[in-house]
Amino acid sequence: MPGRRGLCGVGGASVDRLWSFSFPSFRIHWCAWGSFGGRADGELSKGFVEALKAVVGSSHVSTAVAVRQQHGHDESMHRCQPPDAVVWPQNVEQVSQLAALCYSQGVPIIPFGTGTGLEGGVCAVQGGVCINLTHMDKILELNREDFSVVVEPGVTHKALNTHLRDSGLWFPVDPGADASLCGMVATGASGTNAVRYGTMRENVLNLEVVLPGGELLHTAGLGRHFRKSAAGYNLTGLFVGSEGTLGLITAATLRLHPAPEATVVATCAFPSVQAAVDSTVHILQAAVPVARIEFLDDVTMDACNKHSQLNCSVAPTLFLEFHGSEQVLAEQLQRAEEITQDNGAFHFSSAKEAEERSRLWAARHSAWYAVLALRPGYKGYSTDVCVPISRLPEILVQTKEDLKAQGLTGAILGHVGDGNFHCLLLVDPEDPEELHRVMAFSELLGRRALALHGTCTGEHGIGLGKRQLLQEEVGAVGMETMRRLKAMLDPRGLMNPGKVL
Amino acid sequence: MPGRRGLCGVGGASVDRLWSFSFPSFRIHWCAWGSFGGRADGELSKGFVEALKAVVGSSHVSTAVAVRQQHGHDESMHRCQPPDAVVWPQNVEQVSQLAALCYSQGVPIIPFGTGTGLEGGVCAVQGGVCINLTHMDKILELNREDFSVVVEPGVTHKALNTHLRDSGLWFPVDPGADASLCGMVATGASGTNAVRYGTMRENVLNLEVVLPGGELLHTAGLGRHFRKSAAGYNLTGLFVGSEGTLGLITAATLRLHPAPEATVVATCAFPSVQAAVDSTVHILQAAVPVARIEFLDDVTMDACNKHSQLNCSVAPTLFLEFHGSEQVLAEQLQRAEEITQDNGAFHFSSAKEAEERSRLWAARHSAWYAVLALRPGYKGYSTDVCVPISRLPEILVQTKEDLKAQGLTGAILGHVGDGNFHCLLLVDPEDPEELHRVMAFSELLGRRALALHGTCTGEHGIGLGKRQLLQEEVGAVGMETMRRLKAMLDPRGLMNPGKVL
Repeated sequence: MPGRRGLCGVGGASVDRLWSFSFPSFRIHWCAWGSFGGRADGELSKGFVEALKAVVGSSHVSTAVAVRQQHGHDESMHRCQPPDAVVWPQNVEQVSQLAALCYSQGVPIIPFGTGTGLEGGVCAVQGGVCINLTHMDKILELNREDFSVVVEPGVTHKALNTHLRDSGLWFPVDPGADASLCGMVATGASGTNAVRYGTMRENVLNLEVVLPGGELLHTAGLGRHFRKSAAGYNLTGLFVGSEGTLGLITAATLRLHPAPEATVVATCAFPSVQAAVDSTVHILQAAVPVARIEFLDDVTMDACNKHSQLNCSVAPTLFLEFHGSEQVLAEQLQRAEEITQDNGAFHFSSAKEAEERSRLWAARHSAWYAVLALRPGYKGYSTDVCVPISRLPEILVQTKEDLKAQGLTGAILGHVGDGNFHCLLLVDPEDPEELHRVMAFSELLGRRALALHGTCTGEHGIGLGKRQLLQEEVGAVGMETMRRLKAMLDPRGLMNPGKVL
Repeated sequence: MPGRRGLCGVGGASVDRLWSFSFPSFRIHWCAWGSFGGRADGELSKGFVEALKAVVGSSHVSTAVAVRQQHGHDESMHRCQPPDAVVWPQNVEQVSQLAALCYSQGVPIIPFGTGTGLEGGVCAVQGGVCINLTHMDKILELNREDFSVVVEPGVTHKALNTHLRDSGLWFPVDPGADASLCGMVATGASGTNAVRYGTMRENVLNLEVVLPGGELLHTAGLGRHFRKSAAGYNLTGLFVGSEGTLGLITAATLRLHPAPEATVVATCAFPSVQAAVDSTVHILQAAVPVARIEFLDDVTMDACNKHSQLNCSVAPTLFLEFHGSEQVLAEQLQRAEEITQDNGAFHFSSAKEAEERSRLWAARHSAWYAVLALRPGYKGYSTDVCVPISRLPEILVQTKEDLKAQGLTGAILGHVGDGNFHCLLLVDPEDPEELHRVMAFSELLGRRALALHGTCTGEHGIGLGKRQLLQEEVGAVGMETMRRLKAMLDPRGLMNPGKVL
């Protein structure tokens, strides 16, 4: 990020510049200062919309119903009112000016990336202005020797890896959807490679953040991309996973990893969930540096067989992937096969060829659609929890019993090496009673995870859907500390209001 | 941590309990509410000392000059007044009561572990009560299958690894000194294994923290030890590296790793610093999973040869360590040797035998004393910076020129895989002018690191010594955000005052 901004020679220079803007006061019916009471008749005045256009240009502001509705939800079933306007800033200076304008006028601000979230994080609970950051999609800086890259918020992880293809480097965090990297920072995303390469928390080196009032913060200092530091409080870590409630992330400096020399995948089926999880623990204990170790239950395997023309056993299954040199891979594969067979695995098979590997992972990443296809016309409801790995067998067995007891169709799959799994539930959109049971099930699953010393979400975030569970997870002092953090950075409560807390 | 405390069934339960204590008001001459102005005649009243004794017992409170002086400094040359009293709590309930007592009376609180810090983090700038946590030294919980452990603040990393010896697990973060683990959390320690296993930031899963007023916070929720989470703000990350300025860490849940099946070390000498750093970058780019890769300059090698009876070349040198299976090690070693020789290395030699390996690492960890021995009677001044690895050669060359220009004796060694290095400077304690030059050199080195997009400290922390550099590193908005964080958690500014900010 060094030097790219006239806005801020030092982190602080921007403040005066921004606070020196003075906006005429537009009459708008809005929630009062600091109020979270929602709004009945909120409406952007003509003058305010003109002010938005003055910042980003007329063609980058829309109040069209279709556009607003498209920006009023993510891929989940959480629904609420759409934002009152959508704007597409072209650079960080415009983002700062938009934030200063909205904040000075008491207008809620909702950051928007690819809209692929799963907990309603982009819903405009109180209306306001949706700031769509996808037009800012440049890769600003690649430091090969330093294993780091600086990206604008519209760059997706697939776009970054395409850009890196010939560099010998890659960015491993992959949540499945082709999400924007700064959106992944905001939700603290992880995915299939986390067991070896970590989540966003371990792979973000620095962030450029527009604070609610428009000030520009560089969490590790302007242009810095060192590997580690013990200098002051960890501001970067504070914004990873903040779900757009503390500021707008306008650039991220990410840690890159050397591209694996060779890759091999393996699949094996097990007589029981316990056997699959035991194999996972033993593989980790043996320090086999597995890059991916994914669990798919019998329902998921059945769906994948049908949808992706696999012919795997319909049984608890592990998909594994190993990265390294040819010689190292052979040894890793052999040790993994021995361990899984000691645990009763059958049908252990592996593939080195890129084509077969991508066929398998395409099937894994299409599991969501495969499960949806089990019940045409139904919608999917996805939930995610994470527990200490030793507690996985009991919660997976309990969850299958709960599904049966509730008469729900649900598939279980997950990043078993982290103790993180998802339940994909099918619901008839015409049947509100079933939706009610699905949501009750999701809450029960969250509470089961909490009772086993786990967390109510391993990677989807809190958003709208899990605020009650968060309170149960962190307790009164934890919640009070989070509320004070929010109030410290967003005293008017206008930054993506109604989320997380 | 589950269930060990009567104090807090839920995170919040402790609050009322603690705030319901009422302490009689003791007459003490103290810095006013919120003031950082230091103090001229601060003195603990008899009544206050009695109140401390009432909490921890008479035998666990001392106001003896020798004891206070012993607790008034760390291993650095930073000096200031000692604390007015030292107390040894036996459990978290006592820590909470001590914090509530001190806070209600406006008395500064300084947490103390092993006193092995290097930036004056335990100096009692405003006097006050030093809380020595070393009597709380139990390993509370070991979850082998979950790769996690819960330790009290007095447990050191060596004590933990001794306890783990037969478990097949270990805790890799090793700053050199046998520091307490919660002290390592507080300074965000790292050390020689960080290149592969990460620093404290990546290895802390949960913290129990007594907040300044006595409230008990579990940063990830009471008793939780999951591997990852996207639930709310990252409170754990906020306290790692907070240097005792936000609260007292009374328990830490740490991530463990499988003990390596086999280990091999290698050393090789290079014709230049550039060649040693280039080798490091190429080894990392080749994805050779090196566990340690340490740089020692010619001065350090000369000192180690003399002090530890090595007979290595007096030249820029790398010490490397590899972890894995026998077969994997052979391949890693071969690739590392090829890479270093392509970069002109000479005298590449390796050792598998435990005895030879520990002789080499003992020499590396004794480098501090080896360098001190170069000038009998002199004291050592250690500083640390971290830069993007591509900038290492230029800063190392510049640093050697600065040493020459300043007429100072200094040795350079570091964790080159992270871009982090230390400079050990020798200073005549009878020569204040030389001490002045040493401190000026340290500041110059910090500024050189900042100019190269680095940080003024990779692992020692800010403490007393680097507060000005921190301001230059994070900028005005960064500093303001840190100040607001501090004020949010410690409104009276009594928690280890005068440090970091």
